Amino acid sequence: MKKQKIVTIGGGTGSFTVLSGLKYYPVELSAIVSMADDGGSTGVLRDELGVLPPGDVRQCLVALSESRRAMLELFNYRYSHGGLAGHNFGNIFLSTLEKLTGDFGKAVKEAGKILRIQGQVIPVTFADTKLIGELKSGKVIAGQYRIEKAHPSDLKKLWLAPRAKANPEALKAIRRADKIVINPGNLFLSIIPNLLVSGVTDAIRESRGQKIYVSNLMSSLGLTDNFTVMDHINELEKYLGRKTIDAVVYNTQRPTPELLRKYSREGEHLVELGNVPKNSRLKLVGDKLVARKVFKRPKGDKISRTLIRHDSDKIAKLIFAL
Amino acid sequence: MKKQKIVTIGGGTGSFTVLSGLKYYPVELSAIVSMADDGGSTGVLRDELGVLPPGDVRQCLVALSESRRAMLELFNYRYSHGGLAGHNFGNIFLSTLEKLTGDFGKAVKEAGKILRIQGQVIPVTFADTKLIGELKSGKVIAGQYRIEKAHPSDLKKLWLAPRAKANPEALKAIRRADKIVINPGNLFLSIIPNLLVSGVTDAIRESRGQKIYVSNLMSSLGLTDNFTVMDHINELEKYLGRKTIDAVVYNTQRPTPELLRKYSREGEHLVELGNVPKNSRLKLVGDKLVARKVFKRPKGDKISRTLIRHDSDKIAKLIFAL
Repeated sequence: MKKQKIVTIGGGTGSFTVLSGLKYYPVELSAIVSMADDGGSTGVLRDELGVLPPGDVRQCLVALSESRRAMLELFNYRYSHGGLAGHNFGNIFLSTLEKLTGDFGKAVKEAGKILRIQGQVIPVTFADTKLIGELKSGKVIAGQYRIEKAHPSDLKKLWLAPRAKANPEALKAIRRADKIVINPGNLFLSIIPNLLVSGVTDAIRESRGQKIYVSNLMSSLGLTDNFTVMDHINELEKYLGRKTIDAVVYNTQRPTPELLRKYSREGEHLVELGNVPKNSRLKLVGDKLVARKVFKRPKGDKISRTLIRHDSDKIAKLIFAL
Repeated sequence: MKKQKIVTIGGGTGSFTVLSGLKYYPVELSAIVSMADDGGSTGVLRDELGVLPPGDVRQCLVALSESRRAMLELFNYRYSHGGLAGHNFGNIFLSTLEKLTGDFGKAVKEAGKILRIQGQVIPVTFADTKLIGELKSGKVIAGQYRIEKAHPSDLKKLWLAPRAKANPEALKAIRRADKIVINPGNLFLSIIPNLLVSGVTDAIRESRGQKIYVSNLMSSLGLTDNFTVMDHINELEKYLGRKTIDAVVYNTQRPTPELLRKYSREGEHLVELGNVPKNSRLKLVGDKLVARKVFKRPKGDKISRTLIRHDSDKIAKLIFAL
């Protein structure tokens, strides 16, 4: 049987979830990764070493790795003391390889060999670019991290500066794909930045691959307050063009009231399906997608992380069967 | 043919030289490594993360590795900018593995697997100990790095505080060895600290293995000014017991006058054989041991390094044939 060629598009955490599940299926995986991250350990490395953002790429590498367990734990290790506090070992690893090879693309490929990954991890661009957001008030915020911290409920427009040209390998993978999966993740800060890279939306539209969106479980404070699954899709299709997305994988399960209250206190809510237009040809794949295990924040982790996580295996099964 | 069991004892750089050559011979290698290093990147990691010194172990791991070239370059990469400046990637790697496993011994073994080393690297002790030096003036200096910087020409006594018990694996390797090689390196700061670990000198004396000393090419400012090869041996035998060393591999070649002048300006001189007592049973193996390539200081390297290096292949050949 010919392997399905699956391309995923996303940031770090959501891509990790989708890839971790898909790698056990007979598929040929290409993980296209956003390069707009500039917070935390990644931000410090970008500033101090002048490297491209390693954080999201690292998570995809770990997801696809078949390496020794200790190597993977090492890659995700975060320092809590001393001059390295806040840094993540895997980020340092990738940035050092980039300094050594003088080329982020080579560094990612070499890291892939060292970590013995299945499939490939493809940075969406090699441009050293910044995500810029304009609010309805006219205010402009530069940088993904700063936009996130501002919780802007009136975000009007996003772009990359300077303009970023797509990594040719990303375009090639999209064109050849049987399935193009848009991963869950922060819609405006991790997913859409991929679509802002010139060449990407054209390639997606032109690809004969099935376009699948895996929707978020929870909203993001300020950014997707009260968003339904359909609102996410409408937002994506502003970039992709109307009716580009063929299928959506979304959650129909309610987490425990206790967990929902925790989120609610931080201003985040469960994402529900919303109104699907009557004439819509969108394939709706709703299922219970909440992972049974409640995720614990890792010690020393400065980046806030979701406590409610997707069930990787279930998502993979649904995507594979589509 | 049965493989020769060779144990080497030393610090970082000198051990690297000897091991890099020996690994191409049909030998079973055990590299016993000093744990007294507390300068540079190693010192900062010890202070900030509370780990054992990774620097010398790293050099032995790299010497014995059969890993991809990029992985080795990575391991030796030294940062010149930002918060990581002065750090060495391999040191961070080892210290992170130690934090992760909570055990330096496990970290070294895991790193050995990741780097696919031939043979084993054995920290001489797992005690978190410091090298202490007493000068003839009565002054006491604590710490290997501080002793080195003081250039004490009147060093009277060295000890470890707190006292350090040997790693049982080090003792086992010494007892089973066919050959015990004392590597070149800073005599008082990298070599003798191994002999100060309790259990080590007894094991060496009791071992039936042939005891071989590979002498330094150049003296160390303040520490071994005007030392001959025989002075080095006498110093070692203060710890090992008289006539413990069976053979010495030493250099008979004069580097170029230009290089010698460079060293001379830094107060360091060529080590000559010196007077061998008439009744000595010491086997003298003199040969041209200076590597043809002049070593360049790596960019961003804060630790001073020798420009004149041993020829690894030649040393290995001589040790193997003994």
